[in-house]
Amino acid sequence: MIKVSIIGSGNVAQQLITTFQNLEKSGSEIELVQVFSRKKESLTHLLHSEQIISDLDDLQEVDLYLIAISDDAIESLSGELPFKNRLVAHTSGSMPLTIVNDNNRKGVFYPLQTFTKGIAVDFKQIPICLEAENPTDYQVLNRVAKIISDKVYAINSDQRKALHVAAVFVNNFTNHLFAIGNEICTENQIPFEILKPLMEETVQKAQTLSPEEAQTGPAIRNDQKTIAAHEAFLTNKNQLKLYKILTQSIQENGKKL
Amino acid sequence: MIKVSIIGSGNVAQQLITTFQNLEKSGSEIELVQVFSRKKESLTHLLHSEQIISDLDDLQEVDLYLIAISDDAIESLSGELPFKNRLVAHTSGSMPLTIVNDNNRKGVFYPLQTFTKGIAVDFKQIPICLEAENPTDYQVLNRVAKIISDKVYAINSDQRKALHVAAVFVNNFTNHLFAIGNEICTENQIPFEILKPLMEETVQKAQTLSPEEAQTGPAIRNDQKTIAAHEAFLTNKNQLKLYKILTQSIQENGKKL
Repeated sequence: MIKVSIIGSGNVAQQLITTFQNLEKSGSEIELVQVFSRKKESLTHLLHSEQIISDLDDLQEVDLYLIAISDDAIESLSGELPFKNRLVAHTSGSMPLTIVNDNNRKGVFYPLQTFTKGIAVDFKQIPICLEAENPTDYQVLNRVAKIISDKVYAINSDQRKALHVAAVFVNNFTNHLFAIGNEICTENQIPFEILKPLMEETVQKAQTLSPEEAQTGPAIRNDQKTIAAHEAFLTNKNQLKLYKILTQSIQENGKKL
Repeated sequence: MIKVSIIGSGNVAQQLITTFQNLEKSGSEIELVQVFSRKKESLTHLLHSEQIISDLDDLQEVDLYLIAISDDAIESLSGELPFKNRLVAHTSGSMPLTIVNDNNRKGVFYPLQTFTKGIAVDFKQIPICLEAENPTDYQVLNRVAKIISDKVYAINSDQRKALHVAAVFVNNFTNHLFAIGNEICTENQIPFEILKPLMEETVQKAQTLSPEEAQTGPAIRNDQKTIAAHEAFLTNKNQLKLYKILTQSIQENGKKL
């Protein structure tokens, strides 16, 4: 058995708790021992009260502590842990391995996905990015990760920083373009769902081909007539600004990307 | 039976030909009569030679002519048709109903999807946007559309123009952000496939919630520290410019969208 405890009660913590619990029921080799949260009540819908602790001194010895709390709090919390030389991994995409306090052995266990509170995810399909200070610790992280996911990657701190920025482009910014699309639909009494198959195919095509090969539309084929018509159509200043800048970026970089 | 002929040999024309042929085999009420192409050889892999014509005068009388050619050519080609008062529909997202020559009854039959040459699509999942001058013609378009797709919408020319612009945002521009993500991954020896589940979830979440509710990331939570770290990381000028503008747009409009 691999004994794991989780520190945190937010979105990622709760998704991990649920996943570990389901795995325990089906007899996996992971045992979720304790979960630390300053506010016990935020976890009582998921765990027996005796599994939830709100004092770090109550943490039992386990093989892996997973810190799933906000980025800013990782450094100080890892410094408060009342033990030494145990494996402590954070789950953040934007923090380096070294943010974990020197008292313990450092690791990163970063699930690359956007989580929605209350909506369960299938962890099997979520890439987990791992980093550790030494091969033995890496193997512990790797064993846990492979039990919960089919997609496990060794990603160092520099790569993870890059990955996090790339994720902002393909998730946060893409979602914002979806919001603009929704706004245009709403303004014209068009159901946004009509765009869903196109949105899904955009993802599939970018992965089957590459985004560079998959690029279509007036910008890449330099169709000035359509571009002018679209710009004339867009009376919303922000929509027009984004249209112009993204069109320009595709024209200047779309082919050489 | 509904008799249909197609004018054109490009991507959309070929997808429609294949779909109609498969439906004929399974005994649907659509009969694909002829396909017009100036270059017969571009269709010989799909059709018997006698079904392909390269002279408009050879067009037989059918219930519906579908013009699937480039936007710029629709007006002049529809003016060359050697008959009157028949139902002629184009398949373009960016052209109005009125672009079809007055000699015939005008219609629009616009499948909203990004097609890739040689990759067959499941038309059942592709929204088809219809418009006609009168209810009788609309019914003909509607019967054909419902045979090939589960998603049929009445969309007038103004709405279709808006939809086409929205599609540029959720497809062309989104794909460009994927290209930037791929570029960042490549520069840091990260496989782009690692981002695929996130890209897929971004689409699902924007449709399950709404894109406005689904917005996450440093911009919407005004996390200046992470934004500054990302901006310091981005040495590529174009990447940095897009990062700043999209971050600003989310901050200014993300919540009220």
